Amino acid sequence: MKERSGVRRVIAEREEELPTSEFVKIVKIAEERHDVISLGPGEPDFDTPKNIIKVAKKKLDQGFTHYTPIGGRSDTKKAIAKKLKKENKIDVNPESQVIVTVGAKEAILLSLMSLVDPGEAVLIPDPGYLPYRSMADTITVEPLSVRLKMEDGFEYDIDEVKKVIEPKRTKAMILNSPSNPTGTVFTKKKLEEIADFAIDNSLVVISDEAYEKFVYDGSKHISIGSLNGMHNHVVSIFSFSKSYAMPGFRIGYACGPRDIIQAMTRLKMGTTLSTPTISQLAAIEALKGPQESVKRMVKEYDRRRRFMWRSLNEMGMECLKPKGAFYMFPKIPRGRHNSTTFAHSLLHKTKVLVVPGTEFGKYGEGFVRMSYATSYQKIVKAMGRIEKVLK
Amino acid sequence: MKERSGVRRVIAEREEELPTSEFVKIVKIAEERHDVISLGPGEPDFDTPKNIIKVAKKKLDQGFTHYTPIGGRSDTKKAIAKKLKKENKIDVNPESQVIVTVGAKEAILLSLMSLVDPGEAVLIPDPGYLPYRSMADTITVEPLSVRLKMEDGFEYDIDEVKKVIEPKRTKAMILNSPSNPTGTVFTKKKLEEIADFAIDNSLVVISDEAYEKFVYDGSKHISIGSLNGMHNHVVSIFSFSKSYAMPGFRIGYACGPRDIIQAMTRLKMGTTLSTPTISQLAAIEALKGPQESVKRMVKEYDRRRRFMWRSLNEMGMECLKPKGAFYMFPKIPRGRHNSTTFAHSLLHKTKVLVVPGTEFGKYGEGFVRMSYATSYQKIVKAMGRIEKVLK
Repeated sequence: MKERSGVRRVIAEREEELPTSEFVKIVKIAEERHDVISLGPGEPDFDTPKNIIKVAKKKLDQGFTHYTPIGGRSDTKKAIAKKLKKENKIDVNPESQVIVTVGAKEAILLSLMSLVDPGEAVLIPDPGYLPYRSMADTITVEPLSVRLKMEDGFEYDIDEVKKVIEPKRTKAMILNSPSNPTGTVFTKKKLEEIADFAIDNSLVVISDEAYEKFVYDGSKHISIGSLNGMHNHVVSIFSFSKSYAMPGFRIGYACGPRDIIQAMTRLKMGTTLSTPTISQLAAIEALKGPQESVKRMVKEYDRRRRFMWRSLNEMGMECLKPKGAFYMFPKIPRGRHNSTTFAHSLLHKTKVLVVPGTEFGKYGEGFVRMSYATSYQKIVKAMGRIEKVLK
Repeated sequence: MKERSGVRRVIAEREEELPTSEFVKIVKIAEERHDVISLGPGEPDFDTPKNIIKVAKKKLDQGFTHYTPIGGRSDTKKAIAKKLKKENKIDVNPESQVIVTVGAKEAILLSLMSLVDPGEAVLIPDPGYLPYRSMADTITVEPLSVRLKMEDGFEYDIDEVKKVIEPKRTKAMILNSPSNPTGTVFTKKKLEEIADFAIDNSLVVISDEAYEKFVYDGSKHISIGSLNGMHNHVVSIFSFSKSYAMPGFRIGYACGPRDIIQAMTRLKMGTTLSTPTISQLAAIEALKGPQESVKRMVKEYDRRRRFMWRSLNEMGMECLKPKGAFYMFPKIPRGRHNSTTFAHSLLHKTKVLVVPGTEFGKYGEGFVRMSYATSYQKIVKAMGRIEKVLK
């Protein structure tokens, strides 16, 4: 028999291109210490509302354990189309213009796959949600970082976009409002500006609206796909994970032009086939059932947000007041070396875990992300601890 | 405001490369007719065993609706490692050498992503499971079709592999035993031969063992990853969808060398993040709970298999007696034009739906796939109808 051990094996370059995570190291250190308060979470600290759990259990009993069509169940897609029309002012055909996916994440991946070939490029926000970059790398598409600046309220500045776009090979632009990690809610005026730019540059906008329900201070979430004439140039992506505290169900969806959604559906045969059946049925209940629990969650997030923002201000950490999502993105105090060392020192001195801004791209340097998807009490305690060491 | 409608938009080439499906057309025709018996299904006709449903419901009540670590829950990975050791003779570290995925499909995609870059190639069986080709296209990797011949019992013939391999750029080889669509169970001798070839050519074997539990006539499923010295050269992939009739739960897993599994885990951040939480907990019960329902299903599949094979023989359709999975792959009768026209004419004349062999690659021409994942009664009826028109 041959010797079967000493053969060279090479991991694909696409994996080697993936960004490395400092945060993983910080989390590991945190895990070894007692009494750490984590302001790291990217998921709701609430459980899924009872009415949704009840339906999921009922459907399990009824034997809904088989595959569904690749793009999703018809009843799920119909309920989604109804919601899109009512809440997002987006009018789509449920059969051909909606796809149900394994979280919003798979929808983003499939839309990138549908629109951008290897060697081509996509504009991504920086600071922005880390996986945008990972996904582009994963399918050997180039992510072009657009700098978002605090003085612009972390909205896209078209001049910054112009600096990095490579016109011929840039096919799409990712927009994320309400934004992770900054909490920015894009204004209608800004969305109109982006829409015009996208049209002028033949870009499809991939609009990640996972935080659509989490807006505060009377601000309003507007879907760029609802703007005049944009129905043919936007893939709008939503999630149940945040809105209904259902991350473990792994369900999201996208809507958009027929040809793109059909391409995404065909590509889904090569990623995960269908989306979990029970999750699709639970999602119908989430959309059609009572919405009180959503309101309750938003109200509680808002309470925490106001407290956290006030605290940060009082201790002199400069921070835009976020209008959406469940994150704050304060500047690190003057004289601190960088985001990573500041996050490490905060963990070391106060046992409070925050995420270095550079986890969200190079332009996140000088900031940290703090999540308020954790209890009010813990936030009070965490703010107290931080204040002590900053004084 | 600008005119936002008339802009050229191009779907990515990766989508245009996807194979088109004649079967989709046949299914559409079938849907418009009454009393069609489908021998098309690629999923168990059984419901998920009750003990698994019970655990899923309990865990829903207990609030297991949050994200899990990207690679899977520790308890799920431990239960999987235990099963791998006992049933597959594969010894792995549960923390670093196991990944829980959204079906076996995501595991295949992630392993391809981890091992093969754009412009490089992967060997795939032909006839073989269609999505192997789709997945390669999706990530712009070239699928090299290896012809499987009836006279070889549809096992890989190394001479055929040598005909198509392009040594420098071929990084991996997909093996599927028990096989879809042919029902072939590879012998240990053949697996040893493939193992040697893989080592000689620096190939990683991606071993799709989704049908591992479905073997008949006393034949035995052997994991190529268990062969001497192969632990470092095989990614072994398994599914709960078939073994425990859990396709709607969307859960599968892979094990293999640490560096590959870690790369897959990092890449999963860009596909679906974590696998559904309830599915991961239900999977533990599937592995640890009573296995009687699996035995019952296998016994019933076997009964159908024996009947179907006898019937095909009696009506003069040449067919290897499959030793595994739940498919038959008979030759179309002499004088028939091709697989697609035969499938169409069968539907037209007998209202029996079968899958043209070309759905599984060009070397599937001249064959059709018949699934016995449908009731015994329906199979009896379908065989009767086919026999009438073939006489």
